[in-house]
Amino acid sequence: MPKRLLAHFNQYVSISEEEFMDILPYFERKTARKKEMISRAGVSCDQTYFVLEGCLNMYFTTEKGSERTVQFAIENWWLTDDLAYINKQPTEFNIQAVEKTAYLVISHDQHMKLLERFPKLEKYFRSIYQIAYGASLIKFKFLQDLSKEEIYFHFTENFPGFAQRVPQYLIASFLGLTPEYVSEIRAKRRS
Amino acid sequence: MPKRLLAHFNQYVSISEEEFMDILPYFERKTARKKEMISRAGVSCDQTYFVLEGCLNMYFTTEKGSERTVQFAIENWWLTDDLAYINKQPTEFNIQAVEKTAYLVISHDQHMKLLERFPKLEKYFRSIYQIAYGASLIKFKFLQDLSKEEIYFHFTENFPGFAQRVPQYLIASFLGLTPEYVSEIRAKRRS
Repeated sequence: MPKRLLAHFNQYVSISEEEFMDILPYFERKTARKKEMISRAGVSCDQTYFVLEGCLNMYFTTEKGSERTVQFAIENWWLTDDLAYINKQPTEFNIQAVEKTAYLVISHDQHMKLLERFPKLEKYFRSIYQIAYGASLIKFKFLQDLSKEEIYFHFTENFPGFAQRVPQYLIASFLGLTPEYVSEIRAKRRS
Repeated sequence: MPKRLLAHFNQYVSISEEEFMDILPYFERKTARKKEMISRAGVSCDQTYFVLEGCLNMYFTTEKGSERTVQFAIENWWLTDDLAYINKQPTEFNIQAVEKTAYLVISHDQHMKLLERFPKLEKYFRSIYQIAYGASLIKFKFLQDLSKEEIYFHFTENFPGFAQRVPQYLIASFLGLTPEYVSEIRAKRRS
């Protein structure tokens, strides 16, 4: 299953099977049960995660104690608190498995060593961060442009894979809505 | 002034003055008057911009006709609609100079050629996109975690350079607030 990462590399750069055998030891392969915590707020963030199968949820807890998702990661997505990761500083985000999840972990130090040894992976990471940043600009647009109801249906219609796998309350949280509001607009549309 | 880009490269990678002489011709140096349009929604996005001096504003027009900022760029920041840029597709964003602005432009084709010729610049762009993406995750957190009033004062207190240079109505738009609301909370705090 780690070959999913090789296939993902090869969407952007050219990595041979032999090279991948040298790349893989920089990573640790792990699995998490549904709802298992992978990393916690308050500790130094020095790892990033690549999802092989399953789904991860990065969220924070508001002052009032509710949990709000800022990013999901499904297969072929990377996830961490990137600013904290770059600076190896404490993160304010938790990362948790939404469902049973197989993933690869790399530490910041190993990541930097990997990039030094295989500089062509810089292009891969440049590409994935550029796409992630570009997508976040579009998300800002949606959050400002659409009504709450439109945001919800836009998301579920454009990302049906997410909408079917991720519990409603997490999708609501990711979109800045309350679960009650989502139940209401879903009921309205069904009727 | 283009040397600002050389200095910025050298925060992340090592580029000599000689190399920079070979890099610079990939860019075009331009200036824009205050409020001048730099690129428009509806056309194919095949350029990205590096601000040497001044400030650029990327915004879209809502269905109701109001303008909403999704990103500013001041000195040493890159700005474009990255997803449209990667795919050379039409953008829904306009880019306009907030004040008199000197900037460098590179086309997508020239950018890709530059990266092929100087692969070490992949590391530079990997770093800047990773930072930009990391910052957007933090922005999502603030938008979900803080009240509208807290969002405004958090922004102006943490980025005083922006708050002093950028007109209030643009800051309001960037933070998803109305100019009237910003006037109100500023008046409240002064009183």
